[in-house]
Amino acid sequence: MSDFENPVIRARLAALRESMLRHGVDAYLVLTDDFHASEYVDRYFKCRKWLSGFRGSAGTLVVTADEAGLWTDGRYFLAAAEQLRGTGVELRRMGEPGVPTIPEYLKQTLKDGQCLGYDGRTVTDAYARTLRTALFGREIRYAETLDLVGELWTDRPPFPAHPIWELEERFAGRSRADKLRFLREKMAALGADWHLLSSLDDIAWLFNLRGGDVAYSPVFYSYTLLSEDHAILYAAPEAFGAELRARLEADGVTIRPYLQIYEDLKALPGGKKLLLSRARTNVALIGAVPPGVELIDKPNPSTLAKAEKNPVEMENERLAHVQDGVAVTKMIHWLREEEKSGAIARGELTELDVSEKLLGFRRERPGFVDQSFSPIVAAGEHGAIVHYEATEESNAPVRPDSFLLVDTGGHYLQGSTDITRTVAIGALSEEQKRHYTAVLRGHLDVAAACFRHGCTGVNLDVLARMPLWELGLDYNHGTGHGVGYLLNVHEGPQGLRLRDQNSGAPFEEGMLTSDEPGLYLAGQYGIRIENLMLCVRTRQTEHGQFMGFEPVTMVPYERRAILPDMLTERELAQLNEYHAKVYERLSPWLDEDERAWLAEEAAAIGK
Amino acid sequence: MSDFENPVIRARLAALRESMLRHGVDAYLVLTDDFHASEYVDRYFKCRKWLSGFRGSAGTLVVTADEAGLWTDGRYFLAAAEQLRGTGVELRRMGEPGVPTIPEYLKQTLKDGQCLGYDGRTVTDAYARTLRTALFGREIRYAETLDLVGELWTDRPPFPAHPIWELEERFAGRSRADKLRFLREKMAALGADWHLLSSLDDIAWLFNLRGGDVAYSPVFYSYTLLSEDHAILYAAPEAFGAELRARLEADGVTIRPYLQIYEDLKALPGGKKLLLSRARTNVALIGAVPPGVELIDKPNPSTLAKAEKNPVEMENERLAHVQDGVAVTKMIHWLREEEKSGAIARGELTELDVSEKLLGFRRERPGFVDQSFSPIVAAGEHGAIVHYEATEESNAPVRPDSFLLVDTGGHYLQGSTDITRTVAIGALSEEQKRHYTAVLRGHLDVAAACFRHGCTGVNLDVLARMPLWELGLDYNHGTGHGVGYLLNVHEGPQGLRLRDQNSGAPFEEGMLTSDEPGLYLAGQYGIRIENLMLCVRTRQTEHGQFMGFEPVTMVPYERRAILPDMLTERELAQLNEYHAKVYERLSPWLDEDERAWLAEEAAAIGK
Repeated sequence: MSDFENPVIRARLAALRESMLRHGVDAYLVLTDDFHASEYVDRYFKCRKWLSGFRGSAGTLVVTADEAGLWTDGRYFLAAAEQLRGTGVELRRMGEPGVPTIPEYLKQTLKDGQCLGYDGRTVTDAYARTLRTALFGREIRYAETLDLVGELWTDRPPFPAHPIWELEERFAGRSRADKLRFLREKMAALGADWHLLSSLDDIAWLFNLRGGDVAYSPVFYSYTLLSEDHAILYAAPEAFGAELRARLEADGVTIRPYLQIYEDLKALPGGKKLLLSRARTNVALIGAVPPGVELIDKPNPSTLAKAEKNPVEMENERLAHVQDGVAVTKMIHWLREEEKSGAIARGELTELDVSEKLLGFRRERPGFVDQSFSPIVAAGEHGAIVHYEATEESNAPVRPDSFLLVDTGGHYLQGSTDITRTVAIGALSEEQKRHYTAVLRGHLDVAAACFRHGCTGVNLDVLARMPLWELGLDYNHGTGHGVGYLLNVHEGPQGLRLRDQNSGAPFEEGMLTSDEPGLYLAGQYGIRIENLMLCVRTRQTEHGQFMGFEPVTMVPYERRAILPDMLTERELAQLNEYHAKVYERLSPWLDEDERAWLAEEAAAIGK
Repeated sequence: MSDFENPVIRARLAALRESMLRHGVDAYLVLTDDFHASEYVDRYFKCRKWLSGFRGSAGTLVVTADEAGLWTDGRYFLAAAEQLRGTGVELRRMGEPGVPTIPEYLKQTLKDGQCLGYDGRTVTDAYARTLRTALFGREIRYAETLDLVGELWTDRPPFPAHPIWELEERFAGRSRADKLRFLREKMAALGADWHLLSSLDDIAWLFNLRGGDVAYSPVFYSYTLLSEDHAILYAAPEAFGAELRARLEADGVTIRPYLQIYEDLKALPGGKKLLLSRARTNVALIGAVPPGVELIDKPNPSTLAKAEKNPVEMENERLAHVQDGVAVTKMIHWLREEEKSGAIARGELTELDVSEKLLGFRRERPGFVDQSFSPIVAAGEHGAIVHYEATEESNAPVRPDSFLLVDTGGHYLQGSTDITRTVAIGALSEEQKRHYTAVLRGHLDVAAACFRHGCTGVNLDVLARMPLWELGLDYNHGTGHGVGYLLNVHEGPQGLRLRDQNSGAPFEEGMLTSDEPGLYLAGQYGIRIENLMLCVRTRQTEHGQFMGFEPVTMVPYERRAILPDMLTERELAQLNEYHAKVYERLSPWLDEDERAWLAEEAAAIGK
């Protein structure tokens, strides 16, 4: 396809293959996970990126003597093809016809007597079992404790241990003591003597603690072991100040060193029952549990509790979204001014300039902590690369007569945000407007959903797609994901997608979920419109409990790109109502110019 | 609650408990299935009905020394409560809060050392495994070959063996030889040496044969064992005529006696692989397979092939639905005449009269074979009992100022129909019209769905419910089910429901599915509107293959009950287009009076 070669990656793969040969390994898996199945990981763990060059947040590399394949999903097809160019790594497009899954590939590729290797700390127990099930009946050896990349990666970053801080109860809405009591009740109901937590978001939520070990996700590397009498937090002892340590001790929490968990697990007394979620626990931890201890494999009870924001958190999220909306709206106003000044026409404004400007506006907002993920600012055709990230190399000027897709978010003490606006630059074609309006219709239709309690995102996802499907259009990603409170920007158990391995969790009051349909035309442009919505109870009748969504994101849509005739009467009324609320909430925080401009942007649209 | 006693049922349960005591059984399960996991079964198999008095088509009875419980789903809550009155059998409403599943109940109830009994021929292997999994770790004995009800049921009907006949290729669209070739290709692809079919619909489809062993379902009791060289049909030899037998032999099909399958399975050579669907195979058959034979547990390949109607079947279904539409439309016209004559006001017309009249109209149609299920004709408040069936005892007069719900269907040589119309009798209230129009909106919205290939009924079900949910209303059943071709009126794998154990099969071209939202107000009335729809490919774009539904049912909706202002412009246009097509297709088959009346019923409605 291309004569470009990537000598750095090719050399690393060659070194890995030599190491595989020495260790007698025939296929080696490099996953994206840290030791906690976190979505976002510290750079210490970015072995797959180091080895393949692919920077996306999801993907698994499989290396054999002759082949190297990178499995990733539809979000990354375009980006991965770009980043893998010249590396010799083949892109395996997950879900496309004819593309085997990794277990299927290994079944086809590995011969009897051969060896499959990986670093078991980065592999969840559930995934290890999937592999063994697929290879059942074959004579395959497993080398589960091989960190081959770690051996080769000489300038690997140090293991992180940033300071840990406490999230006050006026933000968290619920005390640590209360959450511990809640978890112990759940353990008792499940008949568990001990509970092992190794997911970092669950631990941070439980203790009302936050850290800085992972970019864009204020968690800290840790494990937790809980019983009726003990609450042991395994983390870097130097990360706690004396005062915090005292407050934790007052709540009955003991701090032990991070790696001590493996020893303590081995010492668990037999005959006891240990609650854990195999899907979120690495296979090395499971291996440390003595055979006499019975495992109760259930989702962590904290995961659902954490997703259902309490009333204090719900109110805080509304406040955080006003502040975040002020920052994003100021950025859009600034873009308009730059457009008027001719700077955009002259090609003087780049994607990174926009990113930086927006971060500046966010930093001015009260309560702002950090960005909630790596900003996506994608001009023109870059917008069609779903998880495009502007770098010094790719950085492109903002161009007239196209779209600028801006998908960013912030962590605030009052909660986390995730918003996408697609801004029109210059004059749009009728087709561009038709496409924008179709995406907007789907976005509005999800937000307007009135549904019976028990519905999942698998049931509701079609609402976002129908207006696109009617035009023969679609997008290759889910419609929405759960969002944590000053935690991960992608946080389950709920979501909005057509298919879900676990059929999806029903929407419950307080769940915060994104609503982000899109449209991507390779080589042309991308459109995505995203709000976060709180799930709320609407009314109860003899037919059941009915639920709805309350959009909390407060930023105007792109007025220039809307074709009012394409909207139904209901959609138009909904749009105007939303814009009126945006003006009402944001205007007190804007300067006079911005306020006057917003009044025009948010003015009612007629047919 | 009630002082009514049902001495017949109480005596039967007492006799069963005596028998349980003799056999050392502590809990005894009575399922609804025959030996083939058929949905409709011959009366020979109706042990649960005989023992409990509950007549619904789904339900399981569990009897212990102290308790008797009948588990059934939302469709039957009202009917079961009525029919179980005075029997001492407790209704267990499946899916309601606090109601345990049967495995959960058995886990709570059975003590270590106790015995669970059932007739293994009526229990699928999959369900037997579910029970064993739930009771894992407990010391429970299983008595799997106990037909206790058979021992008590002295006047049990004889085992059925009605004549078997051939469905010509001009109706089936595909020859027996071609279907056998197709199945053998699938077996080869799955690495199977043998294939055991025990689902009656799959067998009837495969051989282009039909029978009369089961009311409303033209199948015949049989098993099939297939290999590269053998096609053995196990069925009553006396059910075949000499000519048919010769034609089957010409296609390489051997006939052996029905019960011979158990002996032949035991004689299968070791080292071979046997393809079967454990979910549709009884545990006694599985037990007959020698241990040296490897089981390949997959859905029967014939199930999907059967669901995807071929072009000949699709065209035949359209024809069958015109004929069936003529019968139903004639019935509605006759009802109108009866209304005009004052017969309804005088209470002279009953549910059973309507049923009989409609059957008479159907019998006049060319190609009519039988009714496709027991007709539901439910006047006024009977309509709120979802699977109400008028009997001599319950038979009620058709009443003015309410709804008459008519859910019926026919088997034709050209296919099977299933249609519900809710007819307005006399004057309706505004609320009744609002309710009817809300149900109609959901029904129209499903039919108008434009969706990407890959969608399942779990994705699309909400379209039918949204208009009701917006009013705080809902219905307690799925929105649609697959329908066989002159086979079962409920036939998977696709369906339209919010949740599906197997996540539902994607809609494929040629699938025939019902679209039947409803609304049920206990003590008042029920509304249901049902068409059958063929799934068709609409267009392919760079974003995928898009699909839609083509309604094939041809009967006007209830004009008097429609509030046009509640419909969107799209819904109104869709309604008028459908009515125009109904008139066009039916009018050639109607007499002059009927035609003039239909022209008014189907005339375009404006706002």
